[in-house]
Amino acid sequence: MNEHGILAVVSGFSGAGKGTLMKALLERYDNYALSISATTRNPREGEVDGREYFFVNEEHFKNMIKQEDLIEYAQYVNHYYGTPKQYVFNQMEQGKDVILEIEIQGALKVKERFPETILIFVIPPNAEELKRRLIGRGTENEEVISARLHRAVEEAEGIDSYDYIVINDTVESCVEVMHRLIQVQHNRVSNNKAFISQIREELKNI
Amino acid sequence: MNEHGILAVVSGFSGAGKGTLMKALLERYDNYALSISATTRNPREGEVDGREYFFVNEEHFKNMIKQEDLIEYAQYVNHYYGTPKQYVFNQMEQGKDVILEIEIQGALKVKERFPETILIFVIPPNAEELKRRLIGRGTENEEVISARLHRAVEEAEGIDSYDYIVINDTVESCVEVMHRLIQVQHNRVSNNKAFISQIREELKNI
Repeated sequence: MNEHGILAVVSGFSGAGKGTLMKALLERYDNYALSISATTRNPREGEVDGREYFFVNEEHFKNMIKQEDLIEYAQYVNHYYGTPKQYVFNQMEQGKDVILEIEIQGALKVKERFPETILIFVIPPNAEELKRRLIGRGTENEEVISARLHRAVEEAEGIDSYDYIVINDTVESCVEVMHRLIQVQHNRVSNNKAFISQIREELKNI
Repeated sequence: MNEHGILAVVSGFSGAGKGTLMKALLERYDNYALSISATTRNPREGEVDGREYFFVNEEHFKNMIKQEDLIEYAQYVNHYYGTPKQYVFNQMEQGKDVILEIEIQGALKVKERFPETILIFVIPPNAEELKRRLIGRGTENEEVISARLHRAVEEAEGIDSYDYIVINDTVESCVEVMHRLIQVQHNRVSNNKAFISQIREELKNI
């Protein structure tokens, strides 16, 4: 099994706690690699260049587009976000399961180019909980929270394009479900072509 | 979650140990129901009518076809095999995950009618192991074993139509993989339409 790593996209409403989840998943299991996006937005407090994002200016980003260095890119609230190609491919070839934490626009582009990608949408148990978490984070003013809730209505329309939802009730259980979801993809027929061919040959010659 | 049960088809080479696996799965977890097929073949030693199969004669079987009482049916080595509809639907409505242990012809018909069905192919770690198990079972003569191995070559061609493979190395690990495979299907977007609609409504009114 495991002819190569799995590519998994994780999306979710802003404030649904994806960052915390991804951190917990990577701490608990060592078979994952988290793709680091490039972005033209400014770093938030505590964010480090090359850890949360590669923070680049618009000229640099547009150059990456031109050089086809990105798997996908999207514009969201006046900033560019994109996934550098090389790191993702290298990690998958080494058997790592690579997670892209990106928005729906990007998710759909990745799925179109790589249909084996699984798209996971992290969803709060209910809308009130999402609001509570946005307020609780305390990093955004009321206007931003209101904009995010408004945006969530739009984002929710896109869920039908995803393969799976994971309900973010507790970090513990959510991480476990996400891990299982991704791991079973290693059993997909399409991920085991060499093994299946080998069995076929063996059966003919037995 | 769990708006209704999952329908899973489990196929595999004759002698790959599907029966043992299904028994172990049902003993370990109580959320499964195993569909009982109707067949026109004779009972093997130890098989009980209404437990392993409903053993019926050809006239009875053809009548079930006419009455549309079967989800699918297929002919294999001069005998009919089919899946009675009512039991499967009842169990799924009650939230049980229903397993159909059927051949590829039937599997494809079920998938066509119910695209949400997951098709799992149980596969031995290698062809030699399959041969060892066929011989080890001791219930069949050499001619039958040879015919089964020949049939396995044909069956192997059909694996590409399945969604997942599960390698039957030990019963223990195989049952666990199969359980996880089926359980993650409860997270499919298509199995959570009511929940997703509800979140959408909540977000609009928050």
